[in-house]
Amino acid sequence: MLIMQDLASHTAAKLGCEESLYKQLALRISELVEHGTLRPGERVPSVRKCSEQQNVSIATVMQAYRLLENRGVIEARPQSGYYVRALRWSPPAEPSMSKPAPRPVKVRVSDLVLQIVKAGRDPNLIRLGATLPSPELFPTKELGRTMAAVGRRSPLAAHSYDAPPGNHALRVQVARRAMEAGCTLSPDDIITTVGATEALNLCLRAVAKPGDVIAIESPTFFGILQIIESLGMRVCEIPTYPREGVCLDELEERLKHCRVKACVFTLNFSNPLGSCMPDEKKQKLVQLLSKREIPLIEDDIYGNLTFGAKRPKVAKAFDEDGWVLLCDSFTKTLSPGYRVGWVAPGRFHDRVEFLKFVNTSATASQPQMAIAEFLQNGGYDHHLRKIRRFYAAQVQRMTEAVTRYFPKETKLTRPTGGMCLWIELPPHVNTLEVYQLAMAAKISIAPGPLFSAKQKFKNFIRLNCGNPWSDAIENAVKVLGQIIASREE
Amino acid sequence: MLIMQDLASHTAAKLGCEESLYKQLALRISELVEHGTLRPGERVPSVRKCSEQQNVSIATVMQAYRLLENRGVIEARPQSGYYVRALRWSPPAEPSMSKPAPRPVKVRVSDLVLQIVKAGRDPNLIRLGATLPSPELFPTKELGRTMAAVGRRSPLAAHSYDAPPGNHALRVQVARRAMEAGCTLSPDDIITTVGATEALNLCLRAVAKPGDVIAIESPTFFGILQIIESLGMRVCEIPTYPREGVCLDELEERLKHCRVKACVFTLNFSNPLGSCMPDEKKQKLVQLLSKREIPLIEDDIYGNLTFGAKRPKVAKAFDEDGWVLLCDSFTKTLSPGYRVGWVAPGRFHDRVEFLKFVNTSATASQPQMAIAEFLQNGGYDHHLRKIRRFYAAQVQRMTEAVTRYFPKETKLTRPTGGMCLWIELPPHVNTLEVYQLAMAAKISIAPGPLFSAKQKFKNFIRLNCGNPWSDAIENAVKVLGQIIASREE
Repeated sequence: MLIMQDLASHTAAKLGCEESLYKQLALRISELVEHGTLRPGERVPSVRKCSEQQNVSIATVMQAYRLLENRGVIEARPQSGYYVRALRWSPPAEPSMSKPAPRPVKVRVSDLVLQIVKAGRDPNLIRLGATLPSPELFPTKELGRTMAAVGRRSPLAAHSYDAPPGNHALRVQVARRAMEAGCTLSPDDIITTVGATEALNLCLRAVAKPGDVIAIESPTFFGILQIIESLGMRVCEIPTYPREGVCLDELEERLKHCRVKACVFTLNFSNPLGSCMPDEKKQKLVQLLSKREIPLIEDDIYGNLTFGAKRPKVAKAFDEDGWVLLCDSFTKTLSPGYRVGWVAPGRFHDRVEFLKFVNTSATASQPQMAIAEFLQNGGYDHHLRKIRRFYAAQVQRMTEAVTRYFPKETKLTRPTGGMCLWIELPPHVNTLEVYQLAMAAKISIAPGPLFSAKQKFKNFIRLNCGNPWSDAIENAVKVLGQIIASREE
Repeated sequence: MLIMQDLASHTAAKLGCEESLYKQLALRISELVEHGTLRPGERVPSVRKCSEQQNVSIATVMQAYRLLENRGVIEARPQSGYYVRALRWSPPAEPSMSKPAPRPVKVRVSDLVLQIVKAGRDPNLIRLGATLPSPELFPTKELGRTMAAVGRRSPLAAHSYDAPPGNHALRVQVARRAMEAGCTLSPDDIITTVGATEALNLCLRAVAKPGDVIAIESPTFFGILQIIESLGMRVCEIPTYPREGVCLDELEERLKHCRVKACVFTLNFSNPLGSCMPDEKKQKLVQLLSKREIPLIEDDIYGNLTFGAKRPKVAKAFDEDGWVLLCDSFTKTLSPGYRVGWVAPGRFHDRVEFLKFVNTSATASQPQMAIAEFLQNGGYDHHLRKIRRFYAAQVQRMTEAVTRYFPKETKLTRPTGGMCLWIELPPHVNTLEVYQLAMAAKISIAPGPLFSAKQKFKNFIRLNCGNPWSDAIENAVKVLGQIIASREE
């Protein structure tokens, strides 16, 4: 354990007097907990291991641990060892349900988004803006080898069109995996796409026309707003809880007053809220919409990034009449660069397939073949377990850092999956100004106004937790805290 | 030379009497010319080589060649050898200029196209339908190696988004090569896309709205009709010459009566006509449209497949005010499966870049990197020379076969580039019926009605010449001829 080797040298250097050894050791462990290096719920090294690493006696370690236990820093669990106490860390307050305007509105975010996306490409930035997973997390070696192998083995297939519905082997794998999300799909139900972005475009074009009203979560991912804007459609923003997502009562109410043509919801770990709708609520949602014959375009790109033991179901799992169009991709789990996504469009299958053919003719063949083979060979589950642990830890660390460095009135979400945090700052803070100051300090963030059609959420920001924790990120959060504190009321 | 080895065994087996040897040899060569194995303009093996291969004396070969020369089958060219005489083959009649209706119309081809495209996937078909290049023609090995190498060398880049405008190295190569088409482009003028299909979609969406009128060639590639249909736009079909493309006088006339919002033209080796607009006419076209501020969306995917020594210019070469949006891809020259295209959208650059970002986020990274490297390493020119010769020969062979097997009233185009032939059958022939009968005989063709918004061209078909000539193709053309002959007046 790296942490404790670090501690060993630290202690060895500092400790002169033998009798205070256990106190020093206890102090050092307290500091590690304070700084978030050892996190709530995490196991502390065993007494024997600690004694070896620190080159102190078993008795000294026992004394230190007992002291920490008395102080409430760690707790003993029978048959298991010592753990950092969860109670030590009290999570900050959460934002409340959003309250968007009830009328449909035109979307106007694109200029702002493009400006911010382009600015975010500077390689010298600390990137807390875009929700891009860290490239170090992808199984680049295995995927690269698979990519080369399929190209060698099937050169003709790699160079031929894989016309819609797309690569068959991949659709078989996708159908097989859909069972984990509670869904029974056949390969014929699936159409492969250029990422979930193309899937969302095709679905919206399949079910709605320019001028039509689309119901979305509030706040919602700006990419969805941009697609809707580019298609000349309008939005009706639905109040959304930061834990459970869309408020069904409010949705039902708005459906009465507004001719909603379709819904686009991210029910599992929505971006930016990280909200996850309970499965029974998903079932109600599907019933509510199917009864009214309103298509639900479900974006599940974060569904696999659950922090829990089991991934939540998709709404599609409850879809009896084909009104749910499920969109997904491998961008957040395997590779953004491969640009492979898919859609199961239910009753709109033929229309979506036609639009796919017309929009890009086909998805690149070799990346589809490589992902199909990777999924089949079983490396995916292991990989998913790894990145789920990683993102859970990252989100926790970011939460702690924000709690440490941001003003105490700050509220933040408690996502149970995904890779981002949605942060409510004191009402006087204008996050478009914070964005400018942060960029000057080489830190990118996503200001709240990106996430609504009318640029609301002026005092919110979204932070990406996708990159491995580092002193640079810790420092960036600290600088952000200073920038925010500097804004006058 | 395989042909002559074949001849050697043939002659050896057949020839008993020494004195008639030269006559037999001459007869056999005549047959090879008749059947199209030795084509007009092609070099006949040298006297020495032929003597070696046939195991006959130099004198016998000389006698045979002189006989063939006297008969007008071959001709001697000083310092160069003997060639099959071009005059031997008299090309059939050509179709005349198209005469589409002058009013804008809605497009309704999609159901028919999809049905035919789907049916065309049967692997047991002789495919004379889709204009897909033969996969054997692609440099699959070299590209595959390059693909594997870039993945190994730059795994992070291969897995990261290459956000619009797209891969820089590729845009540098595209800009460099644009000079051959008479164009001065900088890498910043270019946006990479998912094939030319996405490029055309983005351009149309950038310059026009649903309901707007788009001027197109008549006949035009059904893919363009489908895109326009899917975007809810209408078309105005412009009369087009089979050799020189769009009639500028007719275009000017229609612009007076109809509010054309943009033009989509394939000026170099259009599909299906194979027409190529002379460069000076392209300049006039650009002036005519720029003066009226009408964007020209130029599809140049066949521009590199010229049969001549030098590729024609693009209209973009004459674009002084940014009204030309040039679309291209590597689908017809390198790999359909890689799905890499590009667009130089002139004054609409920012709008197209935004739409690219919104439509598919990015183009797959690794295929872009592989093509950039392939272009840089210089294999492309050699490859282009090879496939140009190949397609020229294929189109010639198909022309000869059609002349041989189709009714004598048949008219066909004389393309100077590309890979397809547009064939006018006697007026009573309904090619949708021919299509059905051909499919029953496991031969796919593209019936004429696919190529117009109102399903005109009922007695036309397009034949793809992209596959290496074979007995099976020869036979398929023969069967097609029989099917056509069987249609009653």
